[in-house]
Amino acid sequence: MIHPIDNRYGSPEMRAIFDEEKRLEYQLRVEAALVESLAELGQVPAAAAKIIKEKATPEFVKLERVKEIEEITRHDVMALVKALTEVSGEAGKYVHLTATSYDIVDTAQALQIKEAINVILAKGKILLGNCLDIAQKYKDTVQVGRTHGQHAIPITFGFKFANFADKIGEDLVRLKEDLRYAAGKFSGAVGNYAAQEIYGLGDELELRIMGKLGINAADISTQVAPRENLARIVCDIAILAATVEQVAKEVRNLQRTEIAEASEPFGKSQVGSSTMAQKRNPINSENICGNVRVIRSCVAPVLEDVALEHERDLTNSACERSILPTAFVLLDDVLTRINKILAGLVVIPENMAKNLALTRGTIMAEAMITRLVQKGMGRQDAHEILRQSSFEALAKNIELKEVLRNSEAAAKYLSKEEIEKHISYNSYIGRSAEKTDQIITKWQTWNL
Amino acid sequence: MIHPIDNRYGSPEMRAIFDEEKRLEYQLRVEAALVESLAELGQVPAAAAKIIKEKATPEFVKLERVKEIEEITRHDVMALVKALTEVSGEAGKYVHLTATSYDIVDTAQALQIKEAINVILAKGKILLGNCLDIAQKYKDTVQVGRTHGQHAIPITFGFKFANFADKIGEDLVRLKEDLRYAAGKFSGAVGNYAAQEIYGLGDELELRIMGKLGINAADISTQVAPRENLARIVCDIAILAATVEQVAKEVRNLQRTEIAEASEPFGKSQVGSSTMAQKRNPINSENICGNVRVIRSCVAPVLEDVALEHERDLTNSACERSILPTAFVLLDDVLTRINKILAGLVVIPENMAKNLALTRGTIMAEAMITRLVQKGMGRQDAHEILRQSSFEALAKNIELKEVLRNSEAAAKYLSKEEIEKHISYNSYIGRSAEKTDQIITKWQTWNL
Amino acid sequence: MIHPIDNRYGSPEMRAIFDEEKRLEYQLRVEAALVESLAELGQVPAAAAKIIKEKATPEFVKLERVKEIEEITRHDVMALVKALTEVSGEAGKYVHLTATSYDIVDTAQALQIKEAINVILAKGKILLGNCLDIAQKYKDTVQVGRTHGQHAIPITFGFKFANFADKIGEDLVRLKEDLRYAAGKFSGAVGNYAAQEIYGLGDELELRIMGKLGINAADISTQVAPRENLARIVCDIAILAATVEQVAKEVRNLQRTEIAEASEPFGKSQVGSSTMAQKRNPINSENICGNVRVIRSCVAPVLEDVALEHERDLTNSACERSILPTAFVLLDDVLTRINKILAGLVVIPENMAKNLALTRGTIMAEAMITRLVQKGMGRQDAHEILRQSSFEALAKNIELKEVLRNSEAAAKYLSKEEIEKHISYNSYIGRSAEKTDQIITKWQTWNL
Amino acid sequence: MIHPIDNRYGSPEMRAIFDEEKRLEYQLRVEAALVESLAELGQVPAAAAKIIKEKATPEFVKLERVKEIEEITRHDVMALVKALTEVSGEAGKYVHLTATSYDIVDTAQALQIKEAINVILAKGKILLGNCLDIAQKYKDTVQVGRTHGQHAIPITFGFKFANFADKIGEDLVRLKEDLRYAAGKFSGAVGNYAAQEIYGLGDELELRIMGKLGINAADISTQVAPRENLARIVCDIAILAATVEQVAKEVRNLQRTEIAEASEPFGKSQVGSSTMAQKRNPINSENICGNVRVIRSCVAPVLEDVALEHERDLTNSACERSILPTAFVLLDDVLTRINKILAGLVVIPENMAKNLALTRGTIMAEAMITRLVQKGMGRQDAHEILRQSSFEALAKNIELKEVLRNSEAAAKYLSKEEIEKHISYNSYIGRSAEKTDQIITKWQTWNL
Repeated sequence: MIHPIDNRYGSPEMRAIFDEEKRLEYQLRVEAALVESLAELGQVPAAAAKIIKEKATPEFVKLERVKEIEEITRHDVMALVKALTEVSGEAGKYVHLTATSYDIVDTAQALQIKEAINVILAKGKILLGNCLDIAQKYKDTVQVGRTHGQHAIPITFGFKFANFADKIGEDLVRLKEDLRYAAGKFSGAVGNYAAQEIYGLGDELELRIMGKLGINAADISTQVAPRENLARIVCDIAILAATVEQVAKEVRNLQRTEIAEASEPFGKSQVGSSTMAQKRNPINSENICGNVRVIRSCVAPVLEDVALEHERDLTNSACERSILPTAFVLLDDVLTRINKILAGLVVIPENMAKNLALTRGTIMAEAMITRLVQKGMGRQDAHEILRQSSFEALAKNIELKEVLRNSEAAAKYLSKEEIEKHISYNSYIGRSAEKTDQIITKWQTWNL
Repeated sequence: MIHPIDNRYGSPEMRAIFDEEKRLEYQLRVEAALVESLAELGQVPAAAAKIIKEKATPEFVKLERVKEIEEITRHDVMALVKALTEVSGEAGKYVHLTATSYDIVDTAQALQIKEAINVILAKGKILLGNCLDIAQKYKDTVQVGRTHGQHAIPITFGFKFANFADKIGEDLVRLKEDLRYAAGKFSGAVGNYAAQEIYGLGDELELRIMGKLGINAADISTQVAPRENLARIVCDIAILAATVEQVAKEVRNLQRTEIAEASEPFGKSQVGSSTMAQKRNPINSENICGNVRVIRSCVAPVLEDVALEHERDLTNSACERSILPTAFVLLDDVLTRINKILAGLVVIPENMAKNLALTRGTIMAEAMITRLVQKGMGRQDAHEILRQSSFEALAKNIELKEVLRNSEAAAKYLSKEEIEKHISYNSYIGRSAEKTDQIITKWQTWNL
Repeated sequence: MIHPIDNRYGSPEMRAIFDEEKRLEYQLRVEAALVESLAELGQVPAAAAKIIKEKATPEFVKLERVKEIEEITRHDVMALVKALTEVSGEAGKYVHLTATSYDIVDTAQALQIKEAINVILAKGKILLGNCLDIAQKYKDTVQVGRTHGQHAIPITFGFKFANFADKIGEDLVRLKEDLRYAAGKFSGAVGNYAAQEIYGLGDELELRIMGKLGINAADISTQVAPRENLARIVCDIAILAATVEQVAKEVRNLQRTEIAEASEPFGKSQVGSSTMAQKRNPINSENICGNVRVIRSCVAPVLEDVALEHERDLTNSACERSILPTAFVLLDDVLTRINKILAGLVVIPENMAKNLALTRGTIMAEAMITRLVQKGMGRQDAHEILRQSSFEALAKNIELKEVLRNSEAAAKYLSKEEIEKHISYNSYIGRSAEKTDQIITKWQTWNL
Repeated sequence: MIHPIDNRYGSPEMRAIFDEEKRLEYQLRVEAALVESLAELGQVPAAAAKIIKEKATPEFVKLERVKEIEEITRHDVMALVKALTEVSGEAGKYVHLTATSYDIVDTAQALQIKEAINVILAKGKILLGNCLDIAQKYKDTVQVGRTHGQHAIPITFGFKFANFADKIGEDLVRLKEDLRYAAGKFSGAVGNYAAQEIYGLGDELELRIMGKLGINAADISTQVAPRENLARIVCDIAILAATVEQVAKEVRNLQRTEIAEASEPFGKSQVGSSTMAQKRNPINSENICGNVRVIRSCVAPVLEDVALEHERDLTNSACERSILPTAFVLLDDVLTRINKILAGLVVIPENMAKNLALTRGTIMAEAMITRLVQKGMGRQDAHEILRQSSFEALAKNIELKEVLRNSEAAAKYLSKEEIEKHISYNSYIGRSAEKTDQIITKWQTWNL
């Protein structure tokens, strides 16, 4: 096996959905729904429909046989139809009646996608839960906020994960809405139900089939359902993947030797580097970032697939065979991996505290300016004092509060106790905890 | 000027939204909403707020002055703040109070995007109308349906455009939902309202500002609002663009010399080719297809922008400066162009009729098989007869109906009148007209 | 199996190169070259090296065993090292000496890529030959040249393929040059040969290993060889794929029902459409266009892989596992398919002649203007006459030459015989044949 | 102005090349070369050619006038031809003789690209020089090598930049080779020189024109030169950009508050953050990373442009208008910026030393194992001792050498002096300096 979604990445449940035998099974389910519906509509004897339905599984219609026939006919659906006909005996003549190949292919693919989205939603919900748990647990754990890779002002570690949770939640909301786009079609060779009309079936047959399968029918179609539907789904997959990438990147950065505020769980028997005991390589987070690149690259082809020619050309077909499983299976892998990371995330609050102090209190300059202004100092003056004091603190490598304690200008407005109080990192985390609570509440009630 | 969105593409109204002076104006509107809100919350004297609000327009705060300051400070928002302060006199000290640069930048950008989406929606609605008009007018005009570039079975020209209309409608529905993602933020340097909290403002200030500006606040943010929001919008822009690409590609193909069933309107003084009078180059449709490539290429960068580091890095900034105007202005141009094409679309039903007959009736083989089966012939037999008859018709270049009229086997099941009737193209357009009506009804009631 | 490069696309020889067992084999070859070189340099007993070399094949080091160990260690190369050590008995302690995992991984991958490029070059050369054959055979077969999908002026069918041939040839030249970028590295954990230096080996070891394997060493490396190398190769793969896409698109368009100037070979037992005998679906060309979309999408991730952090991060790893096999196997499939199409291409000169005449000679207007001007008529006048005559010909559906024969103005400059001669399509193919010959000569002498 | 390449990014010299007036100028230069060549070939009076050549500049042919005409004709080249004719008086009738619009457009664009590549090469060479300077200066400055964001083993700072230098050098070599792809064409409406042939000019005219302009002619063309040429150039631009991204990312990471080993130069009056004195935001490096995303996104559209239909369609035109200037101007900006950063790079060796010691010597475990093995200890034993000692050092937060000094097992093989010597970071930088020298030598002799 060659491709990593075959030999390396993805959970068994997701891989099963895209396995070529499962693809066959989905298509057989559509053939079964077709003949059953035709029987209900009086076009096919009930007994024949029953037989076909029974036979329409990979147990009877063997993948090898279908491939054998395809070798000759060069047409995969015709091969499946022939194989199903073969095992259905007399009833065989009712197989595939009124259908066009893509009625089967597109509807089966819609089923497949629906199930795949559901797997993603389930794992996504676990991820959301993991983020909310961390948010809850560390909502008061002060950590330096970083912008441009530089220490800015304090946040809490829980607040950081409340942000992640909210993004993931919003991604999932949208992906759930996307289930509407997993839509099949049963409208014939060019989308106008010409074959069905001869039988006087209107679009009743299509609705009945989709009803049995539990998916939407496209409101209108050509030989194929609108490719915009797939594009929307793959875009939202890529966006969820990008959010996970952000979380994984954060882990990688927090796990840096110099930062060491958090790290992936590290198995006992895992070899980071055979000879470098000090290393804690965030390999799962890195792996996620690599696979997200591949997931993102799936967007361009599905966007190109939209503009099919006339009532369809075939270019989307080969493309979707690669792109859909790649996007779903890799996202599934990425989610499994980030969940494992977050469920066992090593958080090191003492290093957070240590790092917070690295710049000797100068990250509190903004807060101190505001306090001075509130006490009546001119903004310009306050600004200037803090600017100078901060530079002094950094230059002499002493604490800002020490500098301020010795500042006559500051002393006019703030007592030493007030300086002490207002310069503490804890005093300047704003609404970190409240916002975290708010986000937790927002998502606690959310249901898939 | 270099870039075609500056010197060539886009409508005045869309270009205005992204002009650098307009960007300044949006940012000034946010500064005004800020100071106004602070006044209402008792933090700033009402009189001072009034002055700042009056001055916060490009009329007073000149773009050149801002650029001049930026030359020195290397910081665009600080330059704007300084310029606004300069013109506000005494009130100047209340400018930008409690704000972080990106509170202004992100909120202003959300405003900009909201207006840009509204322009797109308006033009998209015209496009939807144009497609529905064509669908209505030609819902009974028979045309050959083509799959794989090959004649398949008949549709109607209206049905083709009903398909386009529905896709465009669905694209617009989604883009309209996306307005929720044009969300600002006013939560300070790391997203936790630390500065506001010192003033005891909670997130009340943010809500008040967004209320004044008529946009959502992100439920939680870091220094920036979630970049997923932009990614979603740009993805949906790219999908709408892809749908338009399909329409334009259809026009190009139908306008081919050999097909000539429809064509772009062709101005009197327009030079197609100076020396080739026979040419009707579909240059606007081609132009659309070219620009859609560029629009699609905007997706990858915004997806990459999602995974900012920690409480933000700056990489999204330069990227969004290019990508957002490019995506919006080019889509705007593409919509204007397709609307012009469709409003004046030249439709040539006689060529549709001529092309329909090109394959001597053999596209009706499927229909005839079904008719024979309905009359009692075995499916295999019917299939074989039509296969042979079709080959004969094509080989001898005679009409299929002629071959069938001479077929003894066929004669047992169908009279000559029945053959004549069932082999007519009109008899096999299925539900083309009904589906067209259904789609027209679906969208007639839709409001922006 | 899920991914189409595992269950559907690609030749056996290319799939073999990327099979996970073959990946193992390449890595074992590098381990063998390593120990052999160390023996030559006096660091390892010759006998031990001999044993390890013998055991370093998938026959002894079983893929299952390696995977088993990896399950525990979570490190693929360490698993391989352990598995090789296990089967090497006493000699085992000399396995992997001085090496870092990526010395093995990157060098093995360079070998793999080199072989994969060679497969592509071989198939590409066949493609070049197929194009040149068509160019040669049809260098005088007049066909209408089309720009904007519109009839322009005549070319020859051979000339069209001379263009394709030259593009493909240039693509191959570049891809062959790219073999230099299939470069390995054996420079240790951070690229500075620290481990080797302790043994006093300098970079001699690296050169010796690469010499044995027949590939370049990167001039300098970190833990990994420069990712620019892969980016260059994948870009050139995507460009070759794009050229093939153009050829396939041309076949699709020439095979359109209305054009029908050429078509894919069509197997006897192949089912185009079960009920549409008239259809000749260009499914292989369409398949190519679909797969080329996927190949093109491989470029973005490898470009993102370039900017690894510090002396490397791991993000390229997962990414390359997907992208490299996908790009190579799909290109291989695309080449096989286009070669099959072109080797059996059905060319229909009579339809070329028929289509050429579709616009009633008006495509010769440009030629006639020039002839009139050469005979002394003013350019403006000539232009105007041809413009009017062309419109008349098209409007009345008569031949342009008929109109011109009746033109008094034209008669002053050209006799009826001259009109007849100069208006013939054959007389205005320019240097189609000469250029074709020139291109044939250019590439005939080219060697892989 | 809207697009940042118009109002924000890019050097004056690069922006000038892509300004719409300059585009006009290039096209006029081609018209001049055409008429001059025709005169030399005896087809046009020398005097007329002289006049046209004189007038063929934007001084006489005003951009506004061309745009005015284009408003009416909807054809940009025809507008230019008309405008040039207008100002050429009697000689006007010889303007554009035998030419097709794209002969002018494509050849002018080739000129433009050639000049743009030359600007890139010049700035790239400065970048190469900057990297080599840093490499030279710090070739012995020990710094920790990092893989996976974790401390690995030592390198030197110069060695890091030797890696960058070599990548940039290789990128430039390739880009210089790409000048051959800046190829024009003068082969008429479909590429076969039909118009020229009537004049008996063969391809002599094309060669003469390209000779005058100093660029290659495509060996064969259709209406347009092969788009593969542009694709190759844009790919190599994206690769160079990606290399620069890596350098910029390195600066961002080394400038992190916790690492602080290097930083961008920081101007006196530059406002990092108004209230956060401690911040040294690497805004230029971040800006580079953002713009590189946009540059990378330029690849996909040019790859799609390759597969034009028949003898050309127009889709490449709009696309290239956006993509080419965006790619070149942004790369130009990125190069300018990185050069500014590197020329003033703040390097802080004392922090390198401090960080190196962060893991208490455990990064030397690999080295110590090798030393022990060289002295005769079994590899497994050595490995185990170092593993345990490293864990002890990290757990107790003491130096590894201290642990080793107290190890009886180690003492059997290494004296305290030897431990002291071999555990020093300096002793394990391998060939960092030698490789650096080697790379410096390699590129010192390289000429543009």
